[in-house]
Amino acid sequence: MISLIEAEKLVLESSISLNFVEKELIDSNGCILAEDVLADRDFPPFNRVAMDGIAIHHSILNLDINAIPIDGIQSAGSPPVSFNHKTKCIEIMTGAVLPSSCTLVVRYEDTEIEGGFAKIINPQDYFEGKNIHLKGKDRLKGDLLLSAGTLIGPAEISTLATVGKSKVMVLEIPHAAIIATGDELVPVNQIPLAHQIRSSNIFSIQSALQNWNVPASIFHLKDDKENLLKELGEIIKAHKIIILSGGVSKGKFDFIPEVLEELGIVKKFHRVAQKPGKPIWFGQSVTGVTVFALPGNPVSTFMCLHRYFKPWLDKILGQKNETKKAVLMDSFHFSPKLTRLVLVIVKCDPGGILRAYTRTGNGSGDLASLLEANAFMELPAEKEKFKEGETFRIFPFNNII
Amino acid sequence: MISLIEAEKLVLESSISLNFVEKELIDSNGCILAEDVLADRDFPPFNRVAMDGIAIHHSILNLDINAIPIDGIQSAGSPPVSFNHKTKCIEIMTGAVLPSSCTLVVRYEDTEIEGGFAKIINPQDYFEGKNIHLKGKDRLKGDLLLSAGTLIGPAEISTLATVGKSKVMVLEIPHAAIIATGDELVPVNQIPLAHQIRSSNIFSIQSALQNWNVPASIFHLKDDKENLLKELGEIIKAHKIIILSGGVSKGKFDFIPEVLEELGIVKKFHRVAQKPGKPIWFGQSVTGVTVFALPGNPVSTFMCLHRYFKPWLDKILGQKNETKKAVLMDSFHFSPKLTRLVLVIVKCDPGGILRAYTRTGNGSGDLASLLEANAFMELPAEKEKFKEGETFRIFPFNNII
Repeated sequence: MISLIEAEKLVLESSISLNFVEKELIDSNGCILAEDVLADRDFPPFNRVAMDGIAIHHSILNLDINAIPIDGIQSAGSPPVSFNHKTKCIEIMTGAVLPSSCTLVVRYEDTEIEGGFAKIINPQDYFEGKNIHLKGKDRLKGDLLLSAGTLIGPAEISTLATVGKSKVMVLEIPHAAIIATGDELVPVNQIPLAHQIRSSNIFSIQSALQNWNVPASIFHLKDDKENLLKELGEIIKAHKIIILSGGVSKGKFDFIPEVLEELGIVKKFHRVAQKPGKPIWFGQSVTGVTVFALPGNPVSTFMCLHRYFKPWLDKILGQKNETKKAVLMDSFHFSPKLTRLVLVIVKCDPGGILRAYTRTGNGSGDLASLLEANAFMELPAEKEKFKEGETFRIFPFNNII
Repeated sequence: MISLIEAEKLVLESSISLNFVEKELIDSNGCILAEDVLADRDFPPFNRVAMDGIAIHHSILNLDINAIPIDGIQSAGSPPVSFNHKTKCIEIMTGAVLPSSCTLVVRYEDTEIEGGFAKIINPQDYFEGKNIHLKGKDRLKGDLLLSAGTLIGPAEISTLATVGKSKVMVLEIPHAAIIATGDELVPVNQIPLAHQIRSSNIFSIQSALQNWNVPASIFHLKDDKENLLKELGEIIKAHKIIILSGGVSKGKFDFIPEVLEELGIVKKFHRVAQKPGKPIWFGQSVTGVTVFALPGNPVSTFMCLHRYFKPWLDKILGQKNETKKAVLMDSFHFSPKLTRLVLVIVKCDPGGILRAYTRTGNGSGDLASLLEANAFMELPAEKEKFKEGETFRIFPFNNII
């Protein structure tokens, strides 16, 4: 049995390469950019007016500012009107091109306009360049705006739109197969007999994958070795990512590890010194089919998915999986030499500190305990006593902040 | 001009009621549950075996534990086999029903099995109830598992599956209209002339709404009053939620506020003492059409969306919008009596503390500055000096934790 840290290392070493796919701009939200994106022109592309008001040359500020003749009006979006005066002004709108003879904009709030003349109130607040967003100030044509590997969110979408990327090249995440085993499981729409329960893990896995932008299909296979060899063999042929739930423990009908090996998935590890989730099996074929065979208890499945699959996903997507820590708010004693994953609810306190309150539940079969937590905390195997006030790593299930 | 806090209050008071809609289980991920969900039977529904091994009556532990006769095998998912012995054992698998004559399970790791007999190693570790997940221990039949108003994520999906909810009643978020105005804007797939730029705000808004599970369509309207009255009128007839970008400032062509009022949208406020985003306009019709008319500068649009629309959305969905705070890591001076929204990058340090590093950028027109931030920090109008080490409220754009 290996340690969680060794297991994590083996998982992260088992990378696969991804293809690219072109998506419509709005559909690239949540994807990983697969191309560098450069500024197609300066940002802003011209000396851009940043306030509605009047544009002037700054020398006017030293002259008569009580009656500046207004010569014309310039809206945003209209071709620049002809204006070339240092002693007159032009009314001008946010987003318009600044005439070349002007050096600042006085906002309407600081003017009085009457009979074709403008008066400047508070001239002392104005100087050359005021309310002008200078051409190229933010970025120059050819500058790298977004590099390949960036996670695309709303701000990136907006930037992509600005440079004309109506289609975007992104990493293509392979379609995953999520497979339940366990003859005690019946479909959701069926009434279980006394000794049966409904299949649920495949749905929590599928919805987590949905949140991580991984397309997935669900399957349920019978705990019969011949059947598993045949059906799992077919699924492996058609998928690069396989997540199994159940069938990896010490039971007489836990055929998954031997079946996977017979199907050419090379075992990287089986059983990890952790609680819950000890029976986890992980392997990869020479062609890159990557298999996470998770224990079937609902809490184990859920934690192993977040502790192994998600970091692996981030790795293949080239995303940093930054360590997140929180302050343990209850003292906790756990003597076995196992890494303990404990359900917690993490809250951000008024001092900006993340505090984790333990929610122990009734063990790895207690599905309902997950509803009361928003993360789990990882308590290292080397320690026995975990004291209130110590900080440990957390793995959030939901968005905490 | 009102304060940001007054504006927020007016927004949150302008609630609307939502309809319910039935969704397929997996499609309810990210939605708000609109029904209470009860346990359809006990959790677990029977005395459930929690480890693979042998089931025994605890009195055997005081007798001969070196050669317990094995009488049968019980898999999970098979109807319970007949076993009613206090001096024999049965091999039994995780998830199976515990025979009524048994009171504990010894895991395979603590047994030696040979020739039809089992020997227990480490008997001192065993006692009545060990490795048994007792019927009803987690929840009882009829217990409330999930209440109406719960945000559905992977753990909730799993629970819904367990109780047989193949279809789930959730709140229906009305389809939103996202409208750009501004004659300087051209479509993404077009090469802009020197004085034009591509439309981008509608895409950042649309993708943020996508992340918040709000369906939305995008529109671009010309800055012409007659045209706005006609086209905006049509859009208002067909949508309950309207988000506009641009046309609310002091410009000669900023017709949006007057057009909205002519179309029956009652102004709640226009202009807020904040920077950026001051020109924001907000109103609601008597029929509940709710209009957020945001300033057109990209940073203003983005911040106002997160500062007003998102809390309003949480409010209509019955979700708590918990205050999140972080420690300011740069000293900052800002003297105008305006609430200052400053771009920051928030990081979780090894002590579990959220630290915010300011990224000021080149003002509200600097779209690219958003790419370097993951939140904004709200600095209150009453203060001028904001010191390193003080904590202030943050509004994350992305998932920070």
